[in-house]
This record gives sequence, C-alpha cells and structure tokens, in this order.
Amino acid sequence: MSPHPSKLAYVPFVSVEHMMGLVHHIGVETVLKDLAAEIEADFRRWPLFDKTPRVASHSDVGVIELMPTSDGETYGFKYVNGHPGNPVAGLQTVTAFGLLADVASGYPRLLSEMTLLTALRTAATSAMAARHLAPKGARCMAMIGNGAQSEFQCLAFKAVCGIDTVRLYDIDASATARCARNLADSGLSVVTCRSEMEAIEGAQIITTCTADKQYATILTDNMVGAGVHINAIGGDCPGKTELHRDILLRSSIFVEYPPQTRIEGEIQQLDPDHPVTELWQVITGAARGRSDDRQITLFDSVGFAVEDFSALRYIARAITGTPYFTRLDMIADPDDPRDLFGMFQRARP
Amino acid sequence: MSPHPSKLAYVPFVSVEHMMGLVHHIGVETVLKDLAAEIEADFRRWPLFDKTPRVASHSDVGVIELMPTSDGETYGFKYVNGHPGNPVAGLQTVTAFGLLADVASGYPRLLSEMTLLTALRTAATSAMAARHLAPKGARCMAMIGNGAQSEFQCLAFKAVCGIDTVRLYDIDASATARCARNLADSGLSVVTCRSEMEAIEGAQIITTCTADKQYATILTDNMVGAGVHINAIGGDCPGKTELHRDILLRSSIFVEYPPQTRIEGEIQQLDPDHPVTELWQVITGAARGRSDDRQITLFDSVGFAVEDFSALRYIARAITGTPYFTRLDMIADPDDPRDLFGMFQRARP
Repeated sequence: MSPHPSKLAYVPFVSVEHMMGLVHHIGVETVLKDLAAEIEADFRRWPLFDKTPRVASHSDVGVIELMPTSDGETYGFKYVNGHPGNPVAGLQTVTAFGLLADVASGYPRLLSEMTLLTALRTAATSAMAARHLAPKGARCMAMIGNGAQSEFQCLAFKAVCGIDTVRLYDIDASATARCARNLADSGLSVVTCRSEMEAIEGAQIITTCTADKQYATILTDNMVGAGVHINAIGGDCPGKTELHRDILLRSSIFVEYPPQTRIEGEIQQLDPDHPVTELWQVITGAARGRSDDRQITLFDSVGFAVEDFSALRYIARAITGTPYFTRLDMIADPDDPRDLFGMFQRARP
Repeated sequence: MSPHPSKLAYVPFVSVEHMMGLVHHIGVETVLKDLAAEIEADFRRWPLFDKTPRVASHSDVGVIELMPTSDGETYGFKYVNGHPGNPVAGLQTVTAFGLLADVASGYPRLLSEMTLLTALRTAATSAMAARHLAPKGARCMAMIGNGAQSEFQCLAFKAVCGIDTVRLYDIDASATARCARNLADSGLSVVTCRSEMEAIEGAQIITTCTADKQYATILTDNMVGAGVHINAIGGDCPGKTELHRDILLRSSIFVEYPPQTRIEGEIQQLDPDHPVTELWQVITGAARGRSDDRQITLFDSVGFAVEDFSALRYIARAITGTPYFTRLDMIADPDDPRDLFGMFQRARP
C-alpha cells in the first residue's frame, strides 16, 4: 500500500491566468464560435438536463447563487455573485467559478475560474440565439451598455452572426470610449454614439446590457422599429429590467427556461401566462423562430446553468495536452478507501 | 493602471496535504476540541443562520449535494457526494470540498478540501452533542462500524467527553483490526469485539456508524439498556437507517434540523409528528437534555451545513500565519471593474 494518495485526488484547475492564456492560444473568436456550437448542441438535448432552480442567498447588497445541473453523466455547478455596488469599491459586479464532476462516482473532474468564462458563454449564447432569430443578412448591431460584457457580445456577434458594424452607447461616455478602444483591432467598424436613439439607427440587432439600475427603461416603445432582433441581457434578476413593457407586448419573446425567466427576466413585467417560446424548441425545429420580416424578435436572456455546463465541458476538453491548467490536491483519496485516518496518520511529519 | 489583477483575485486554498499538515501541527485532539467549541458556539446562535435545504442531484448510484448556509456576514457551502459503491472501485464513499465567501461583496475568501475536514467536524459534532446528553462520568464507548469515520469518532469522544475505553466491532474483522491499529498510540484502551452484543457490554455510549446498507438493523431493541446515550451517525439519507424502530420509541431523540432529519435520519421510521428536541435548544438551555439516569438519549445525526460553516471558519483562522495554504488565482478582478476585456487583452502573449 503506497502512502501517497491516488491520482484521483487531483482535480485539474484552470486559473484566471490560464483561462486568459487558453483563450488567446485558441483565439477568442474561435472560442466564441466553439462555445456557441457547444451550447447549441446541449440546447438540442434540453429535456435531458436536470433543471434544478438556482439556489440563491440574498442580502441587502447582493446575491450569491449556486447553479447546478446534470445530464446524467456529468454534473456541473457554478458559484456566482451579483453585487451592483461592487464597482464603487473597485470590485467586479459578478464573479464566478465552476466545477464539473462525474455522476457515477461523485468525484470532481474540473475546477475553473468562470468570471471570464461566464462573459464568453453569455456572449456565445446571445449570438447563437440571434443566429436563429435575427433578420437574415443583419450586419449592424447597436450595443447599449458598454460595461464588462460589451466587447464579448460584439466579438461573438461578429464571429457567429457575421456582424461587421457595432454602434456603441453608454450613459457613461468613458465606458463607450474604452469599449471602442478595446475593439479597435477587432476588424469591426466601431461607431461611438451619444444617445440610445443614435445607436439604434440602421441596426438590425439591438443588444441591451446595462447592469446597475433597478427597473430602468433603456428602450422605449417608439424607438424600436419593425423587423429588428432585440438581445436583452441586463434584465436578469427580480426587480431589474431594461425594456418598456410596450415593447414586450409587440415582440415575439424567446427565453431559456420559462420558470426562471418569468421571475428574473424582462417578462416579469407581463402576466404570468403571457406566451413565450423556449429557445431550445426553435433550435430543434419544434417551434418557429422568426416567421416574417416585420416581426420584432426578443431574446429575454437571464443565463441558465446548462450554458455554464456546456462552457465547462468545452474547457475540460480544450485544456487537454496544453499547459493551461494545474492539478489541485483537493480530494482525499487514500489507497484503502476505509483508511482515511491511516492516510492522515502517515502524513505526520 | 497596473496590468496585474488585484490581491482580491487570489483565494486561499487548503489542499488535502495542507489540511493534514495543519491538523498535525495543531494536534488532532486539540483540533477536535476546538471544532466542538466552534460548532457549539454556532449552535448557540442557530436561529440566525440561513437554513437553505441541501440541493441534491440524485442518480442510480449516488448523490451529489450542495449545502449552503450564511450567518449574514459570511456565506459558506460544501460540495459533497455519497456513493456507497465507490469503495469497490477503490474510491471514497464520501468526498467533499467547501468554500467561504463575504456576503457583503460575494467574493470567495477560502477554498478547502473537506473530505478530511468533514470527518473531523462530524466527530466533533457527535462529541459535542454527547457532552450535553450522555450519562455523567461515561468512560466507555462502543464503536459499531469501523470505517473511515470511526477513528475520528473515538478520538473526539476522548478529547471532548473524557472517554478512556473504546470497544470496536465491524462485520468486517479487518476493519476492526485496522481501526485498533490506528488507535494503538492514542492513549485509549482499545477492545476489539466479535459481535455488536460484545461491543456494547459496559458501554455508556454507543456510536453506530455503518455506511453500506439500506434499511439495516445494527441495534435491536433488547440490546439497548437503560441510561445509555446512542450516537447514530450512519442513518443519514432517505432509505438508510441503522436502528430498530422500537429503540427510537423508547428514546429521547435529539436532532440537528428537524425538516432535514425527518427525511434523512433514523426518525424517517417514525410518524412525521413524533416529538424530537432540537440540539441547539439544549445548548442554549431552552430545552432539557438528559433528565434522568435511566433515560435513553439518542442523537440522530445527519450532518448540517452550519457544522461545515463552523469548520471552514475555524480553518480560515487557523491557517493565518502558517504555511498550510496556497493562493489560487480564481477570481478575475481587473483594476477597472468594467474593463474585464481589457484585462484579457493585455494578457495576450
């Protein structure tokens, strides 16, 4: 009997530095395309997933959530916080990490940072949805709200949907300037705008991603013309929305998981039985997506555990054979499973 | 603006090796005493805790659970699996890790292995409960079931309750021999026994900790005499119990958290309104513990998130100034919180 723990004790860990290195190694647009494909593939088998509601611990200043899911073979969960006051203290509004485990043994198989990965998977999910819902040939996107998520959204729509122009607006002009600077070498035509109205001029896709407000009205009804696709990211928890209710009433609404979106999404403003379409059904062909040129389509996105699961599985595969992970001695696994104490005793200095 | 992430990006991590080193450094009996005191202190403020039910993902072969709680200032959760078939494959039945975070910011503050720590906190909780419930002057404990948890139980009862003799029995004689060998230098008188009946002879405390069976009867009614304290550890999930129902009917039953214990504990065999006493109320003096010499007291323990919280907080303090942790670059935290993409871009090789 060896005094050393088995290899099973070690869990591959992807740090923030390794995640950044891996994404640069593969190429950020390739990663966004790969993630969109991975997420779409998991949406195709949507009914198979264990869709446990997220488990939230609320306080006066924010929320800490655990988001678990499983496909019966692999289990995954994400830890994520949301603290709108954090930036004032120099902290991220949202941070996250995640884990994959084997359902058969319960042993963890991957631990990964997910602050960056969440930004990537959220952008990939938006672009994947737009590929099914946006008007054909859309080339121009308005990006309203130029915070931590904005550049990822712009790049995902370029890589996945073929957008070539983005029109940026944020209530904070320095955020718009920063976003434009960060996208300078992206190959996108970047137009900085001074109002929401200016931003949406000529855009076939409108993405809203503002984070700090309670019930806010980023878009009013008269601003939204026929035929556009709206990708609403920022209305994502109870008491937090971005769109005027009248826009919702004119739109065909697509959501990830209705029981969660009715509580957290834009549609919390509507009657609980207002018709919505589940995105996975559009992807499998069970429901219609965009059916005519004048239709306003709205993806009311709040983020769902399956998207994190897809992203973690992609990362678990992508790190294989690369230097972009370490191994953590995280799981005590003595050679004799009943001899946990003996393992401890033999470790005495 | 520095290109480096802030110190907040780094989360202290206690590996299995570091946990073993730390416990040896402090001394295992001191750790068990400290943990019992820490857990007792948190039981004293029990009503203050957010007692979210554990979130379980079941499969045919086991369960993966997330156990969150919060005291309003600190949030903690444990990931734990339970796979009774794992030992056949050379794996641990139960593995675990845990995390503490600041409620105010949502930022993680500690990541730690918890396979070993769970064994320690479970033993400390048992001994803490027995100090309130066992007959005065108890010196001898029967330890039935000599698996991974058994040595920790024996040491905790020595350190916290003053037990000087343990009588070991397991259906697998090699498990008993191993447990006796591991306890040889502990200062306990160790008696190996060939039946449950022999093990409980002269014992004032009976601890049952068997893991592999479904509804099993480790103790039958005629085996349990007046005045003993029973510490039932092994009946800890739906469909898994250790004691004959008639013993329960003769006992004063003490539990951690009734809504959970009625589903998972020994009392799943009883009517849903069968009277039980919450252990925290005994500790605060709001309810009576042992009231006479002939009473059979039963601690029907299933493990609760508050115990993990106490243990993680203890470890977070104990590692300060020691070499028994590393720092993980787990949380992306750019200097400008809105510039996550800029941080990523500047990391380009």
